[in-house]
Amino acid sequence: MTASREAFEARLRQIGADRYHDRHPFHKLLHGGGCTPDQVRAWVINRYYYQHTIPMKDAAFMSRVEDPELRRIWRSRIEDHDGTAENEGGIRRWLRLAEAVGLDPDYVASRRGVLPATRFACDAYLRFVRERPLLEAVAASLTELFAPKIHAERIEGLLANYAFADDAALSYFRKRLTEAPKDVAFGLAWVLDHADSAEKQDAAAAALEFKTDVLWAQLDALHHAYVTPAEIPPGAWQPDEGLLAGRAA
Amino acid sequence: MTASREAFEARLRQIGADRYHDRHPFHKLLHGGGCTPDQVRAWVINRYYYQHTIPMKDAAFMSRVEDPELRRIWRSRIEDHDGTAENEGGIRRWLRLAEAVGLDPDYVASRRGVLPATRFACDAYLRFVRERPLLEAVAASLTELFAPKIHAERIEGLLANYAFADDAALSYFRKRLTEAPKDVAFGLAWVLDHADSAEKQDAAAAALEFKTDVLWAQLDALHHAYVTPAEIPPGAWQPDEGLLAGRAA
Repeated sequence: MTASREAFEARLRQIGADRYHDRHPFHKLLHGGGCTPDQVRAWVINRYYYQHTIPMKDAAFMSRVEDPELRRIWRSRIEDHDGTAENEGGIRRWLRLAEAVGLDPDYVASRRGVLPATRFACDAYLRFVRERPLLEAVAASLTELFAPKIHAERIEGLLANYAFADDAALSYFRKRLTEAPKDVAFGLAWVLDHADSAEKQDAAAAALEFKTDVLWAQLDALHHAYVTPAEIPPGAWQPDEGLLAGRAA
Repeated sequence: MTASREAFEARLRQIGADRYHDRHPFHKLLHGGGCTPDQVRAWVINRYYYQHTIPMKDAAFMSRVEDPELRRIWRSRIEDHDGTAENEGGIRRWLRLAEAVGLDPDYVASRRGVLPATRFACDAYLRFVRERPLLEAVAASLTELFAPKIHAERIEGLLANYAFADDAALSYFRKRLTEAPKDVAFGLAWVLDHADSAEKQDAAAAALEFKTDVLWAQLDALHHAYVTPAEIPPGAWQPDEGLLAGRAA
């Protein structure tokens, strides 16, 4: 039976409450100040790959949208990440965070040393958006519903606990506090409008669950490789690589 | 053997001289004033499908580009077609041409009545850009090298020969006179830089030939359906459909 708009929205929000990666031990370790500098660096390196994937994912979405108006609205997501004449964009802001934690931004941008599991998860998301119905692609983006809370926690936790953290280093998260709600308000309304059958509601919910898996799997991989028991897989970042000159490993 | 940059550019330009659709009988008929109003309308309806495809094709390209800088440069093509706050965009300008020739722009935007061969050709281009190496995708865009001439001929020929033609109706072509050279200067340099082996030069030349086929096939289909012998396939636009109120069929 097709759920009411309100009940379906509540179902989507419950997925975030149950599965969003703010519940992952690595997130708690990070914003609670329990990460070593190298663990923070490993997170910055791997999370860059996700940032790198997002505008490609959004372009893949646009390449399947036949309505110019929807493309125009969606385009702002790419602008937020890649930048415009007025806005340096999320990718450059992430590289400033990399620099702040002592990493060479060129090393980070090269995406060498990224964990294979990070690549697999992010590439799976790109492929999902390329191949699945538009409704599922939009539904997968709705993890942004839960993002402002995690960004606020990161800002607060990183500022409180790590010497590198200042406004410039954390500008990525601060900017997302205003960008993400704008995007997700549109995306949520679109999904509520278009999921007009029980089958579509199930498919949209499954897509959002899939996306929480994409995020969770990245933190699992980080935790396994760099926290406990630290078991860095072949080819992944080693704590003496990619540092800015003069920074201790 | 790898050709010199100059020789390779000459090879690409020769493809235009031999195969670009300014050599097609339908183009000559159109800009020479030999088309009936219905034949002009059939062209406007079918060519809209190509316009409709182009920003999706450009988004498909961006979805495969890993370099944020290249994505930023390419994004302006989507802006040119879909529009920005300051620029209504090529798709809306094409719909103004549709209105000027007496067609209901909503009918044209619906893409009903488009010839199957038009769809197949344009969809093949989208798929090509989705699947082929980036070099071939960029090379395919280089038909823009030959576009200013055909746009100028269209402006001149349409103004001289058709009552509907005025500056507002033809604004699409006038705008492309400045947009296309900017894009193609970048695309040509990129292809010349990246086609650094004989194999890649051959692949890029083949991609450009493929694209000339995409354009030529659309005019072949128009010519067969609406000129001589007029043989409109099932489901395609009939000269009494999609007209603005008060316009004779």
